[in-house]
Amino acid sequence: MSLVIIGSTALDTIETPFDRRERIVGGSCSYASLAASYFTKPKIVSVAGEDFPREIIKKFNKKGIDTRGMTLEEGKTFFWEGRYGQNPNQRTTLKTEINVFQDFKPELPPDYREADIVFLGTIDPELQLDVLSQVKNPQLTAMDTINLYIENRKKSLLEVISKVDIFFGNDEEVKKITQENNLIIAGRKMLEQGPSFVVIKKGEHGVIIVEDQFISGIPAHPCEDVRDPTGAGDSFAGGFLGYLDQVKSFEEKDIRRAAVYGSVMASFTIEDFGTDRLMTVTQSEIKKRYKEFKNLVSF
Amino acid sequence: MSLVIIGSTALDTIETPFDRRERIVGGSCSYASLAASYFTKPKIVSVAGEDFPREIIKKFNKKGIDTRGMTLEEGKTFFWEGRYGQNPNQRTTLKTEINVFQDFKPELPPDYREADIVFLGTIDPELQLDVLSQVKNPQLTAMDTINLYIENRKKSLLEVISKVDIFFGNDEEVKKITQENNLIIAGRKMLEQGPSFVVIKKGEHGVIIVEDQFISGIPAHPCEDVRDPTGAGDSFAGGFLGYLDQVKSFEEKDIRRAAVYGSVMASFTIEDFGTDRLMTVTQSEIKKRYKEFKNLVSF
Repeated sequence: MSLVIIGSTALDTIETPFDRRERIVGGSCSYASLAASYFTKPKIVSVAGEDFPREIIKKFNKKGIDTRGMTLEEGKTFFWEGRYGQNPNQRTTLKTEINVFQDFKPELPPDYREADIVFLGTIDPELQLDVLSQVKNPQLTAMDTINLYIENRKKSLLEVISKVDIFFGNDEEVKKITQENNLIIAGRKMLEQGPSFVVIKKGEHGVIIVEDQFISGIPAHPCEDVRDPTGAGDSFAGGFLGYLDQVKSFEEKDIRRAAVYGSVMASFTIEDFGTDRLMTVTQSEIKKRYKEFKNLVSF
Repeated sequence: MSLVIIGSTALDTIETPFDRRERIVGGSCSYASLAASYFTKPKIVSVAGEDFPREIIKKFNKKGIDTRGMTLEEGKTFFWEGRYGQNPNQRTTLKTEINVFQDFKPELPPDYREADIVFLGTIDPELQLDVLSQVKNPQLTAMDTINLYIENRKKSLLEVISKVDIFFGNDEEVKKITQENNLIIAGRKMLEQGPSFVVIKKGEHGVIIVEDQFISGIPAHPCEDVRDPTGAGDSFAGGFLGYLDQVKSFEEKDIRRAAVYGSVMASFTIEDFGTDRLMTVTQSEIKKRYKEFKNLVSF
């Protein structure tokens, strides 16, 4: 099968109570595709500027990521600056510069249009719709978003939601879209808007999947040293969909396992700044951590 | 085996966004012993005033709760008034009247002193210490507390903590005692103060158990209609310890299952006001819900 991922490739300046890093590689597409690359060979759709380090693209390719759908433009790469407090679930966005994404008109290579799975990573919903319309007959479509688009692009966002099979969102976002405080009811309300699966990411509290016939709950990996939470949600989605692309099946049991592999990849991401940890994970580390999740919830 | 529970028997006035109930039966001892009564025959230590409904004590006895350690005094029963917002995890205490607990000097009946398991439910830490000292040779001791005692009785509270095997606390309390935001590190810091197991209750996000050699995580039961969250934590502890008293074993696997039975009992409590739901649960409902927890985390 094949997995196409659209999202941002970005440079991020990140401050945590422990450290600060300037203009490191980030963006929803970078995290999601790196996480997915441990399960399949994702094809990415994105745009970067002249300041995006070219050796990173080579590293992406070495990881099996197909970058033919990524364009390099004159100008500056998408930039995000944020700060985390003592509670890693709370972050403040200090600056967002869209830069080369301003005029980005994605044009998918012909083989991308045959994708089986499409992941519309966090990016302007209009771009998500554009990419979705270019894929001929996907078997599974998924999306993620952020508060910014819930506030400023509600109409297009709801259109994307109505067209996808899986909605990934954090608890705050799902509550905001549905105006409902109980997460299970909120999840059911999201189902009414189109998706077959609503995957609610709760940071340190793990993940809930709400589907018509079942609910799945996975606690987060007990991490004692969260270095940088940036990209955890994107890595989750990348691991989730990469695994589904690998097993080529979307049954309940596959979706449940996908959530664990997503949690596994997110648990690695937060162990170091930016994409550093995702660059060095090994298959045996993934297997080991999957077993740790089994053990965590066993009774 | 036998389980002794000390805690409050109280009258509560509770307001939620949906309803209001005045002076209904509550208190940590009531919830914990009712939850435990589905697994064993708990013996309770408490005090109530003239306004405590006598037919409730008969109901306790019918449930197999031994009330010989409960005294009835002149004066008024412990009273608590609280209000919940849209988020059932957030509550405001409007009034607390200690009343007959002011001069309560518990005197345990002889057979209570032979207890195998002692649960020091939420109550003044001085009373917890007093009861603990009266039990000759318990095999397992556990405690719970609230913010009030962390703020006003820190010294005695730390003394209780140093003497028990299991500490039950919610996430906010554990963070407050340890001055640590990461719950896993906070749990480990609690272990250093004495207990062998730290059970962190996170309301709608479930429970984490931190022990020296293992960590267990159980999501909460996906409840779509939380009527009244009062007593969920006490019911959790009651189910947890009642189950251990029933199986007479404190191995890792027993502790993990105890956390699920605790979660099962808490999930019933929140379905109705006060102790109403705990009065009517059946063994087959408990079995069914236990299976639902298995299914929730299966992958």
